[in-house]
Amino acid sequence: MSKKATVGVDVGGTNTAIGIVDAVGNVLVKGGIETPAHGDIDRYMTDLANAINELIKSVKLVNSDIEILGIGVGAPNGNYYNGTIEYAPNLSFKGVIHFVSLLKNKFPELPAIALTNDANAAAIGEMIYGGAKNMKNFVMYTLGTGVGSGVVVNGDLVYGHDGFAGECGHTILIPGGRLCGCGTKGHLEAYCSAGGMKRTAFEIMARDNAGDSLLADKSFKELSSKMIFDAAEKGDKVALEVFEQTGAWLGQGLADTVHHLSPEAIFLFGGPTAAGDYIFKPTKASLEAHLLPIFKNKIKVLPSELSMGDAAIVGASALVWKELEK
Amino acid sequence: MSKKATVGVDVGGTNTAIGIVDAVGNVLVKGGIETPAHGDIDRYMTDLANAINELIKSVKLVNSDIEILGIGVGAPNGNYYNGTIEYAPNLSFKGVIHFVSLLKNKFPELPAIALTNDANAAAIGEMIYGGAKNMKNFVMYTLGTGVGSGVVVNGDLVYGHDGFAGECGHTILIPGGRLCGCGTKGHLEAYCSAGGMKRTAFEIMARDNAGDSLLADKSFKELSSKMIFDAAEKGDKVALEVFEQTGAWLGQGLADTVHHLSPEAIFLFGGPTAAGDYIFKPTKASLEAHLLPIFKNKIKVLPSELSMGDAAIVGASALVWKELEK
Repeated sequence: MSKKATVGVDVGGTNTAIGIVDAVGNVLVKGGIETPAHGDIDRYMTDLANAINELIKSVKLVNSDIEILGIGVGAPNGNYYNGTIEYAPNLSFKGVIHFVSLLKNKFPELPAIALTNDANAAAIGEMIYGGAKNMKNFVMYTLGTGVGSGVVVNGDLVYGHDGFAGECGHTILIPGGRLCGCGTKGHLEAYCSAGGMKRTAFEIMARDNAGDSLLADKSFKELSSKMIFDAAEKGDKVALEVFEQTGAWLGQGLADTVHHLSPEAIFLFGGPTAAGDYIFKPTKASLEAHLLPIFKNKIKVLPSELSMGDAAIVGASALVWKELEK
Repeated sequence: MSKKATVGVDVGGTNTAIGIVDAVGNVLVKGGIETPAHGDIDRYMTDLANAINELIKSVKLVNSDIEILGIGVGAPNGNYYNGTIEYAPNLSFKGVIHFVSLLKNKFPELPAIALTNDANAAAIGEMIYGGAKNMKNFVMYTLGTGVGSGVVVNGDLVYGHDGFAGECGHTILIPGGRLCGCGTKGHLEAYCSAGGMKRTAFEIMARDNAGDSLLADKSFKELSSKMIFDAAEKGDKVALEVFEQTGAWLGQGLADTVHHLSPEAIFLFGGPTAAGDYIFKPTKASLEAHLLPIFKNKIKVLPSELSMGDAAIVGASALVWKELEK
């Protein structure tokens, strides 16, 4: 009996992770190559194709009947409609890269090759393999270095007019507020990302002159959201307030999303969500406080069911299944 | 030759407007009844059916071949999925009203009867008869007593999980800011509705002690957005600043919508939009200032092409055409 599988590729700033994923979201084998600094897309594409072929070969050694249905790619500034990566600030490839056509040249026999950004890929992963399997309307927020999002309406990912929909991390939380990585001010990402939590911790320590906090011996460079979680577990007041405040901000942002889209659920993914109730409780409370009566006590806020380490490749691989549905 | 037409019904707080609308959005005949204060839905439904039948009769007198395809209803707190009006604060009918089934009992022969809220109906009207005819992804903002919105993705109105999507007027513009009609604080509606413009005028007069403004002899009760427009036309500084500030706020809100949905265009409808460039120019400038680079100079901000007076019934009538597509 043949077993169907798909390839997931996650193009990151320094590494490109590759995995072969079965029909229920298990990673059968994974590998990767450097995302190069040389900016030569043809060289990179050859290396990528070789690495994918190696992995396919290794998986077929174990099960010769395995059938590879396609390749899904998650990439920064990935445009689904055009199959392109466009002006990605953290990659060495400049301008508009026709990633999907280049990859199709390497794998002309594969039925489906598609690309989107990493947060959209995670949302599709949640829909195909995870907690959103039976949902038609939901939103995924990925909290990490930045805040990404993927929006699903009527069972389909929303790409919008130009392929770039779902940038909820860049909605305005506090007008004129903190500088965001994108250069403008007050965006949700500047408050609710892992880096945003660090900034909140520094604000609170500065305000309260909190020399007795467990976080007080960490430099701005070294403080991580994991350290804030560990300190919260030990009852550190600053750390606990960071989670309260981050949840209050995130809930406010999620309310705007609900008022646009009325989703069944909002999934949260990424490092800060490992803190569980520390982040989920204040987020839910703030969301409810900001909702119109018709939405109250209706919207689920759920942890992603994708495993943290593999989510990027698993999400990307899910794109293939979504393509084949069409 | 038979001519196809649909009935549009707009249920307002005091009046219910009814129109028979041809296939390109012309109102062939219109009428209406009071939306009663008695709260008796059966009595109201009988009166409504009689009024609709009268109008159909009068239209058939002119053209006996006319074919009525259905009835579309726009109503506050209208739920498309259930065909219900649910807990509408400004109507005398209490709880959940099964409006569509009640109307189907009166018109069992009609192929399509459907209901949604008024802003969603306006968005469908724009798509069927207006400026969004060739668009698959756009958003409609209706600026009036409140601020409503309708979201279209992939050619379909977004109703969300529970039928209530598109409440962009209740997204948070200024955390902790002005009291909104819904009881919470800082919503876009409290700043960008006609009433919001009045509040802005009063804030500016208070701040600048602007006894010389053309608006300075108006009471809070009597000042309207039309008066602000007239004063702006005469160069009144307060009135001009109201438009600048309203546009700045609206552009900020529209940017959040773009970052969710990446629409081709955002249509603005309602009284304040009659001010043309006074409102559109600062809105566009603020939108652009708040957009990520990938969205800049891409998103059209357009005046609705629906005629102001008839938009509610024309929008509602368009629902029928959308139903028959399915």
